Amino acid sequence: FPLVSNVFSIVEKTCSKDPDTRKFIHCVKVGIALVLVSLLYLLDPLFKKVGGNAMWAIMTVVVAFEFFAGATLSKGVNRGVGTILGGGLGCLVAILADEIGGIGHAIAVATSVFIFGAAATYSRFVPSVKKKYDYGVMIFILTFSLVVVSGLRAGTVMKLARERLLTIGMGFAVCIFTNLLIFPMWASDELHRTTAFKFENLARSVEGCLEEYFALVGEKEIQPSANIVSICSSMLHSKSNEESQANFAMWEPWHGKFGLSYPWEKYLQIGEVTRELASTILSLKGCLQSSRQPSPTLRQSIKQPCEIAGLYLASILRELGQSIEEMKKCRAKVLIVPHLHTMKAELSSVTSHSLLEGSENGEGLAMAGFLFLLTGTVEKVEVLAKEVEELGEIAGFKTK
Amino acid sequence: FPLVSNVFSIVEKTCSKDPDTRKFIHCVKVGIALVLVSLLYLLDPLFKKVGGNAMWAIMTVVVAFEFFAGATLSKGVNRGVGTILGGGLGCLVAILADEIGGIGHAIAVATSVFIFGAAATYSRFVPSVKKKYDYGVMIFILTFSLVVVSGLRAGTVMKLARERLLTIGMGFAVCIFTNLLIFPMWASDELHRTTAFKFENLARSVEGCLEEYFALVGEKEIQPSANIVSICSSMLHSKSNEESQANFAMWEPWHGKFGLSYPWEKYLQIGEVTRELASTILSLKGCLQSSRQPSPTLRQSIKQPCEIAGLYLASILRELGQSIEEMKKCRAKVLIVPHLHTMKAELSSVTSHSLLEGSENGEGLAMAGFLFLLTGTVEKVEVLAKEVEELGEIAGFKTK
Repeated sequence: FPLVSNVFSIVEKTCSKDPDTRKFIHCVKVGIALVLVSLLYLLDPLFKKVGGNAMWAIMTVVVAFEFFAGATLSKGVNRGVGTILGGGLGCLVAILADEIGGIGHAIAVATSVFIFGAAATYSRFVPSVKKKYDYGVMIFILTFSLVVVSGLRAGTVMKLARERLLTIGMGFAVCIFTNLLIFPMWASDELHRTTAFKFENLARSVEGCLEEYFALVGEKEIQPSANIVSICSSMLHSKSNEESQANFAMWEPWHGKFGLSYPWEKYLQIGEVTRELASTILSLKGCLQSSRQPSPTLRQSIKQPCEIAGLYLASILRELGQSIEEMKKCRAKVLIVPHLHTMKAELSSVTSHSLLEGSENGEGLAMAGFLFLLTGTVEKVEVLAKEVEELGEIAGFKTK
Repeated sequence: FPLVSNVFSIVEKTCSKDPDTRKFIHCVKVGIALVLVSLLYLLDPLFKKVGGNAMWAIMTVVVAFEFFAGATLSKGVNRGVGTILGGGLGCLVAILADEIGGIGHAIAVATSVFIFGAAATYSRFVPSVKKKYDYGVMIFILTFSLVVVSGLRAGTVMKLARERLLTIGMGFAVCIFTNLLIFPMWASDELHRTTAFKFENLARSVEGCLEEYFALVGEKEIQPSANIVSICSSMLHSKSNEESQANFAMWEPWHGKFGLSYPWEKYLQIGEVTRELASTILSLKGCLQSSRQPSPTLRQSIKQPCEIAGLYLASILRELGQSIEEMKKCRAKVLIVPHLHTMKAELSSVTSHSLLEGSENGEGLAMAGFLFLLTGTVEKVEVLAKEVEELGEIAGFKTK
């Protein structure tokens, strides 16, 4: 058994890092879940119990089996609650409509379908409902309509609803079993990891920008660093992805190192600041590509302080990323922020000196722009450091 | 009848503008579609024909009825094609498995479900499939599994597949009827309108920024213009929304003023540049809130050229927006770009003069940053003007 668990932990480590392996594992899991749920049809004793309703179990597996554990849980619970509410209300309305009888019956059914369908659709426009319960509301409309209209025909509407719910429950159980017990992919892990990794990317981008700016001066060739642009742009568009991951992460409360009420919203706030920082770095990169470049000698005059600032910014960013990754507190307000203030003051004094030199021929503009954006970067890193410290406090990170 | 069509066109005009009215209309449409499809159950002659399969029609309506006409078409076609492919393959496999017989039968079914389920799931990770056919692939998996496993039991698997397809077709017909014939909401209209409207928003933001910057100088109070920030930030996050709208718009080929192969990709490119511009304007706004403000007298010295530049930028942005809205060509390369070049040169000369004055005490840095970003704005507007002219050429806008 130690061997098996060893293999397991190795596979788990690989799969958490290599996206292709994870995709492959997910596909195999879907296949397993489908086979398991097919057994409802394939095994005679099971089929005798559930009958044609086994269809609903298959449907549940296909529809609710998502990549992340939290997404599967959220869809499954949405589906379950939507079915129960829709079925319950549907039964009630079907019974009431039955009391009326005759042609009034059909009219009552049609009216209720119209009113509940339209009202539920309207609720899907409400942002908070749309974000978390959109799928549940859709299932509510579906079940309600099915139960109300078929209640007329099926006669035993309660029995129908109960059986369907039972098979949906079976499908959900199969989903949960395969999704959460076989190499689960946690959205919470993913969000935590990508957030920590962002800092490394930002650090590299800052370094890359400064290197490129002063490589123009030295003997080295200009290395094309288009990857700074692509890294930062992809970061800019990470918002919706992050929001859905945070949403799924909230559905995974009992998981591993994250406690019951882990502050996922704080990750979204940190994400927002990293996007602002990425946007500033993109502007900084834009300076490098601008046609109005200051002369090498002018640039040389600011090289040393800027490079020191860049190195320090990168090391701070890496420290913050590490603090998140290892869940250790960082004492940003005491240890980092004062340094950043000094750095800002130094950059400002550099500017005043060098501007005087370059201002006669417009070169100063480009350089002042560069220094201004660098100062902006320092300011954003300061905000980020404070946010990370706050996260450490709220989430109860260990003290170093 | 003229009266009726008059009322119709008035309602249509209102509904295309007021989002609440549009939501309300959508909900009513969903209600109508549900009632229409319920008739399959409620009317005896119809029910005798379709029987319990009417369920699939209701399901199709609930699932495929989307807000935009293009989205409904895309989902409906995806569902139809997915069902046909899944059903066809399912039949084939079910017949082949039947040949085997005995316990081999069940094994063959389970194996095929596993292989096809896993392979189709893997295809959902391919970005181009995910973007356009994700729903179709899901329905393929669903139908394939259902047909293969129930083929064992239902016996007449071909009949089952045909009937189900027929009812799905009915549901789709109801969807198309209510969605496209009653006040249709075109994603193409929406994308066109929001793209044109973005320019107005950008123009206002540029004006707002400059006004605020120089209002600090004059007697006027500083008006809090947080809306610049919110407008520009919401623009920054419009990417995924725009992409899905462009995707839906491609499904609406025969509609109104847009020809068969209207260049919706160009709208995405323009959207990309507007986001870059919005990001520059946000940095410009950041200058205003920065603590290091140049003195009023220093700012006064650049007031006139900057205000002229701002007014001109805003008018160009409005002209570009109008060109898109009215689908009239704008001759940007000849009429607009040269002016922008002059403007850039002027701003550069302003900078050199004023930097000399302000550079001794670090005030110059903040002001140079402001001027630098303003020059950046001018550059982005130039790119935008060229893109809009290209759009006019590709899309065949009218000549003014």
